[in-house]
Amino acid sequence: MNLRIPGPTPCPDEVLQAGAAQMMNHRGPEFAQILRRVTDGLNWVYGTSADVLSFTTSGTGGLEVAVVNTLSPGDKVLSVSIGSFGDRFKSIAKTYGADVVSYALEWGEAADPAEVGRLLDADPAIKAVMVTHNETSTGTTNPLEAIAREVRRRDRLILVDAVSSMSSIPCPVERWDLDVVVSGSQKGWMVPPGLAFVSFSERAWAANAAAKMPRFYFDAAKTRDSLVKLQNPWTPAMSIYYSLDRAFELMRAEGLEGIFTRHEAIAKYTRDRVKSLGLRLVPVDERFASNTVTAVWWPEGVDGKGISKRAREEYGVVLGGGQGKLEGKIFRVGHLGFVSQADVESALDVVERLLEEAKTAV
Amino acid sequence: MNLRIPGPTPCPDEVLQAGAAQMMNHRGPEFAQILRRVTDGLNWVYGTSADVLSFTTSGTGGLEVAVVNTLSPGDKVLSVSIGSFGDRFKSIAKTYGADVVSYALEWGEAADPAEVGRLLDADPAIKAVMVTHNETSTGTTNPLEAIAREVRRRDRLILVDAVSSMSSIPCPVERWDLDVVVSGSQKGWMVPPGLAFVSFSERAWAANAAAKMPRFYFDAAKTRDSLVKLQNPWTPAMSIYYSLDRAFELMRAEGLEGIFTRHEAIAKYTRDRVKSLGLRLVPVDERFASNTVTAVWWPEGVDGKGISKRAREEYGVVLGGGQGKLEGKIFRVGHLGFVSQADVESALDVVERLLEEAKTAV
Repeated sequence: MNLRIPGPTPCPDEVLQAGAAQMMNHRGPEFAQILRRVTDGLNWVYGTSADVLSFTTSGTGGLEVAVVNTLSPGDKVLSVSIGSFGDRFKSIAKTYGADVVSYALEWGEAADPAEVGRLLDADPAIKAVMVTHNETSTGTTNPLEAIAREVRRRDRLILVDAVSSMSSIPCPVERWDLDVVVSGSQKGWMVPPGLAFVSFSERAWAANAAAKMPRFYFDAAKTRDSLVKLQNPWTPAMSIYYSLDRAFELMRAEGLEGIFTRHEAIAKYTRDRVKSLGLRLVPVDERFASNTVTAVWWPEGVDGKGISKRAREEYGVVLGGGQGKLEGKIFRVGHLGFVSQADVESALDVVERLLEEAKTAV
Repeated sequence: MNLRIPGPTPCPDEVLQAGAAQMMNHRGPEFAQILRRVTDGLNWVYGTSADVLSFTTSGTGGLEVAVVNTLSPGDKVLSVSIGSFGDRFKSIAKTYGADVVSYALEWGEAADPAEVGRLLDADPAIKAVMVTHNETSTGTTNPLEAIAREVRRRDRLILVDAVSSMSSIPCPVERWDLDVVVSGSQKGWMVPPGLAFVSFSERAWAANAAAKMPRFYFDAAKTRDSLVKLQNPWTPAMSIYYSLDRAFELMRAEGLEGIFTRHEAIAKYTRDRVKSLGLRLVPVDERFASNTVTAVWWPEGVDGKGISKRAREEYGVVLGGGQGKLEGKIFRVGHLGFVSQADVESALDVVERLLEEAKTAV
């Protein structure tokens, strides 16, 4: 099977095997060492000296961690949404009673940093900005560094969904001065789903001390206090930690620059190949096309769902579909984590063949 | 290593190996089949015809699911607590703004069903009762069937922490007419931590429709609606589902009655052996001693922590310690899930030897 959805992503065999190790005491000295090594790995990838927290949950749970630990009901926040996951981040804030100002773009567009600055200037009551780094639903990467600069200049908090970017696309948390940054294990980390990672800046911890949204399982301060003892407050998904411990060995051997360069090269190959097939990318401006997932319009009149089904059933190639209003209109090719150019090449060979057959059939 | 804490529990090799299978599309037809089979297994063990929901989280997260999906801020609830996990259930309800009436017992005691009835009669405004079936911190099992009868008679909701009982001790959800029942994968289910299971009765769903506590990741209605499509709303911890799918094959081969009888016999062996060593059980009335975990007082003057450390380092026997106010005063032997009498026997052989050496040293 050639699993080309943008997560869960395929994992190296040795990583899966590491996850099959026997259980141990989650509050004992052996697991403490694993948690220390894994946290060191997270800090390395995040580019931060403050310990990154890990939670047994999905990326969505990680977004909830970001919201409920820094805000109070009634707090005004600016939601920057360029797709389905930006909308989800906004929904979480609304659910917990935030007063949301919405900066929503057409799907396929990236946010304009200058507009973020204008919106913040127009409303000094806005306390935090919620933004997606890499929008998985449209294959579009926001210019996060420039957006963060606008937010910092006005001294607001910036909460970042980096679920499908961190570890694949540069997102240096301290250098860009980001406050809360969320990622998920099943994306570029080469391990199964089950863990979300969340970093907190000093400013975020200060906000946490005053934040009144209710939280128990997702309480970041409890998680931080347990981490000092090299424990989790609740029983964690230990197998995923075992796997991640092994995955970091592979990642360190390749090096962060090597990983970023590989993702960049495969993404460029993907876009060039897709365009050579006469297909159109979902990102309107290719400068913002994602290096972890490529979203492509099905040609007018082509039964995209039928092609995806045949690709899976006849060739073992699993493509991502469109979400929400893009369902049936686009396909997505994931190229993040444990991926080589050959993986994408063979998947697109199948897309090419099936598209030709579809044309001939007409 | 002989891991004798009350969870995470050791897993059969074939279950761990099943968990090492490669990732697949969590919204595709293969995973749909796994989710169907796993849910069928949960329904079988829970004794319910309504699909049991599963969440990627710990048992504590499961307790939060129970609270936030059935209650509104200001709702009056009766907390029945006989130990650390009962207290935790109460804390979750308080965190989300419930008005908690507390029925707290000395640690080592079980709750009195008649007293639950009296407390409910005394306050008709109490909407729900929160109760721990098996209190892992004291090795004490509440008379849940009788407590449920008192609650039902007065038509209130009963929310049950069955994290460390379900699948090891009888807890038939429909027969006992329980409203919300929570368990966790790392207990009697023979799989790694990472999933919590939560059943909802018709009454619980009616309460859900009116419940105003905020929830997003833990939204049970969203999870139920996704399950109809054989999906999870968010990316689930797939490896644990793979493992659980295999574990149910083992459980069905042994049969529910067989599993319960095995747990009962090993628990009785454990208690008899502990008493033959001259040690005292934490449960005041042995009729309420747990069949999944045995809690034992260290003899006066004995360095229990030192013995536990030696058991681990010199013999590879990992005992559970005391939690909260029982820290250093008791030890706990887990005997749930993938366990045989020989596992407990060899662990208690080591305890016996180290206790004798401690006496000789004095």
